[in-house]
Amino acid sequence: MDFTLRIARTAALIIGALVLALLCMGVLGLTARHLQVTLFDTDVKAERLAQKQDYLAAVPAAVENAPNVVVIFFDDLGWGDLSAYGNRLIRTPQMDQAAADGLQMTDFYAASPVCTPSRAALLTGRYPPRTGTDRHVFFPEDSFVGWGRRMLGWPNRLPKDEITLADVLGAAGYRTGMIGKWHLGGQAGHMPNEFGFDSWYGVLWSNDMFPLHLYRDGEIIQEDKRPGGWMSAEWDEQKPLGPGGIDQTTLTQSYTDEAVAFLEASSGAPFFLYLAHTFPHVPHYPSRDHAGTSDGGTYGDVVEDLDRSTGAILAALDRLGLSENTLVVITSDNGADYNGSAGSLRGRKQQILEGGQRVPMIVRWPGTVEAGRTSGAPAMNVDLFPTILSLAGLPLPQDRIIDGKDISDHLTDGQVLAERALFYFPVLSTPPGGIRKGDFKYLFNTGKQGRDRGHLSRLDLDAEAHELSARHLALAAELAAELDDKRAEIEANPRGWIE
Amino acid sequence: MDFTLRIARTAALIIGALVLALLCMGVLGLTARHLQVTLFDTDVKAERLAQKQDYLAAVPAAVENAPNVVVIFFDDLGWGDLSAYGNRLIRTPQMDQAAADGLQMTDFYAASPVCTPSRAALLTGRYPPRTGTDRHVFFPEDSFVGWGRRMLGWPNRLPKDEITLADVLGAAGYRTGMIGKWHLGGQAGHMPNEFGFDSWYGVLWSNDMFPLHLYRDGEIIQEDKRPGGWMSAEWDEQKPLGPGGIDQTTLTQSYTDEAVAFLEASSGAPFFLYLAHTFPHVPHYPSRDHAGTSDGGTYGDVVEDLDRSTGAILAALDRLGLSENTLVVITSDNGADYNGSAGSLRGRKQQILEGGQRVPMIVRWPGTVEAGRTSGAPAMNVDLFPTILSLAGLPLPQDRIIDGKDISDHLTDGQVLAERALFYFPVLSTPPGGIRKGDFKYLFNTGKQGRDRGHLSRLDLDAEAHELSARHLALAAELAAELDDKRAEIEANPRGWIE
Repeated sequence: MDFTLRIARTAALIIGALVLALLCMGVLGLTARHLQVTLFDTDVKAERLAQKQDYLAAVPAAVENAPNVVVIFFDDLGWGDLSAYGNRLIRTPQMDQAAADGLQMTDFYAASPVCTPSRAALLTGRYPPRTGTDRHVFFPEDSFVGWGRRMLGWPNRLPKDEITLADVLGAAGYRTGMIGKWHLGGQAGHMPNEFGFDSWYGVLWSNDMFPLHLYRDGEIIQEDKRPGGWMSAEWDEQKPLGPGGIDQTTLTQSYTDEAVAFLEASSGAPFFLYLAHTFPHVPHYPSRDHAGTSDGGTYGDVVEDLDRSTGAILAALDRLGLSENTLVVITSDNGADYNGSAGSLRGRKQQILEGGQRVPMIVRWPGTVEAGRTSGAPAMNVDLFPTILSLAGLPLPQDRIIDGKDISDHLTDGQVLAERALFYFPVLSTPPGGIRKGDFKYLFNTGKQGRDRGHLSRLDLDAEAHELSARHLALAAELAAELDDKRAEIEANPRGWIE
Repeated sequence: MDFTLRIARTAALIIGALVLALLCMGVLGLTARHLQVTLFDTDVKAERLAQKQDYLAAVPAAVENAPNVVVIFFDDLGWGDLSAYGNRLIRTPQMDQAAADGLQMTDFYAASPVCTPSRAALLTGRYPPRTGTDRHVFFPEDSFVGWGRRMLGWPNRLPKDEITLADVLGAAGYRTGMIGKWHLGGQAGHMPNEFGFDSWYGVLWSNDMFPLHLYRDGEIIQEDKRPGGWMSAEWDEQKPLGPGGIDQTTLTQSYTDEAVAFLEASSGAPFFLYLAHTFPHVPHYPSRDHAGTSDGGTYGDVVEDLDRSTGAILAALDRLGLSENTLVVITSDNGADYNGSAGSLRGRKQQILEGGQRVPMIVRWPGTVEAGRTSGAPAMNVDLFPTILSLAGLPLPQDRIIDGKDISDHLTDGQVLAERALFYFPVLSTPPGGIRKGDFKYLFNTGKQGRDRGHLSRLDLDAEAHELSARHLALAAELAAELDDKRAEIEANPRGWIE
């Protein structure tokens, strides 16, 4: 008995010592990492910053006929959420009209199935790993998750060496305004005004994260009195957040008012307005007079509220005589979340299946973009940066890879786009997990579905159900090889610097 | 230092002792549970068995015009997998023709999004908890998972007191044959021949489980030489299994040959043929001459192979002059798995979203079921037991709840079905997680989606995207209450005994 006890005691001691040792090593390692990341701003080299400054200093004035640009960017609006895209419960007459007055694209993609990398892609024309946004989404700085991200060496802010649309257009003489959600970092030096926006009114984070202060430029103008938590986000994303925060039911309207005011302040110079709505991301807060009015439930209320907002902005452009000089782009940062509609597509937000990344895309520019046209050409929000620069007659940066293509001729004249490959980046993956070319898509890593194997789909005839590699051996091999090449290229040079 | 060491030592001892104690308690508890389950066959009371015997002894002969019954039951065939249901890559001319010759139902459900409970439901007319199949699917007996199931008190075989269609039809004078996959237990006394089938040719398990022997009536006629593993299943379900097993490329054809032989052996007595195909469950093995022929890839090859099989069986019925006396039902055990198509529905196998449970349903009975009719009436495979008993003029058991309804008038005469509630059972849940009534569906527990909240959908206008409770408060409350009542009823009497 005594012997048995002694064995048990020794076993317990060994097991316990191992557990303790592991804990100590973990704490020490993470603390060292934390200090390293906190004390040394290691994500940006001085030479990169200099290159950016040199480029911006050399940007010429925009060409004479350069359009004003309004980008209306929704958060989690699904491909099937607008009546123009087939929704039968939600009514979006304003956006339907915008589509009828311009171009409606059916095969347009966000560059990521989640928020942060898609926003970075739209503003820079670059795929997620280029902008260091290949690790899901950023989190409030002081939360456990924000802390944990820094521990792991995961970025939690857009690197200062990135060049945004606002940077370039501002340098070219545009008045640049941002309204709405940033989600590209909350640290000093990484806010909208430091990335080229003359003005900013809005919030830093998704509306299920907190504290969610309302800012004007760098200043808090409405304070969220809730303290941050260990996550600083509601894990159960459909659960409304507790009291003490800003009144989210007023956000859509106040963004709209700010947008109209920005347009009304227009004078001779061209302008760039980036309106990044907080909704229809969860939790869902429609304007009070919209609550309970939609056949699409609370989610429908929120989307119809956004439709009204869009109508007000388009009406302001008309009223101010600006419409014919203004390129309006209406799209979303990723596909539908749980309560949104992916239409007939497979998958949702977080997945690189079509439903996770394909989004509405409406382009309105009366007199220049032909009314009533639809396009099934594959394109992605990384294309906006080179397209808008092209329309303004501005050169691209030469020190970095711009993944997007100039599709301005397709938008304005309906010119056929040259066939090219579009790549899909699963969340938490640096290399891409899928490629689309023409009507075919080849997925290697389906992300959240957890299957790591080739899956060739015909997007024109099937919603990514049947795996067609056995039927199209050569094509599958070709796409797999092209994807492999891209994976290797990205792994070798994730930020895409051109030396 | 000495003091610090002593504290560390004590902490290590306490932590280690706790870990050891938990381990010991776990092993002791599980062993006790194992002995209890193994030594005492506790799932069936003698009185229940006596009730079953009494009922079967009292079953009268089938009525004069009782039809022959052929149930063709696919494994994982999705709602969108047949061309008759909109598939644009896979061609299923035989089943399309069967649909054109009879009734095609668009809103027909398997009783579960996974295999075992759906099979039990089809054969007994009862929801999963009634038949003790509410704990996902059964596993080979000697595997770690089979052992673990018994540990946890999870059933791994259909209880002997259950009454199957074969039991009743056999007692009423039908010749009863089963061909294909059982998946309702592999223990002695729980095989097809012990549940009313005069003959059985097929396998016990899903084709990603092993050992997968081929049986004829309790005897192994082709042995799978692979030893069982800890799972005795391929966790990565799309990965082909290693060598040593039976040749799965011959299964569809040998099932078909056996089915035709069964039909050819028909004499005066009515017959019931239950053909439970192994495919299109993963891994996918088409007949060799079908490999590489379908535009739907390997999955398409398998489905088109099944279509040829179905055509051969229908042709045999025609050739033998049996078609006008034979009710043929063609359906599936659950919705599409990864490579199958759920059509425009949301969700897949394992989920109680529509794509997980809605399946093709074709009813062919020339001269009795009108050709070319389609029906959008909600119905479920639990309805087959009371419907077929009704057509054969046989009484239902009175000692237990039969959840299905007699829909024979709807099938044969197109009579409108009385409105009723259908319930959805998430895997691993005893109470239901959702209810459908008319065009509305109310989900409380969406199963694998991991959201435990009400979600009201309009199935006619939306693929379960938008949550409409705020728009239809009274209806949501009514459905929630009805679901709650059912949850309480099932929790109080899961097996549904009538005392």
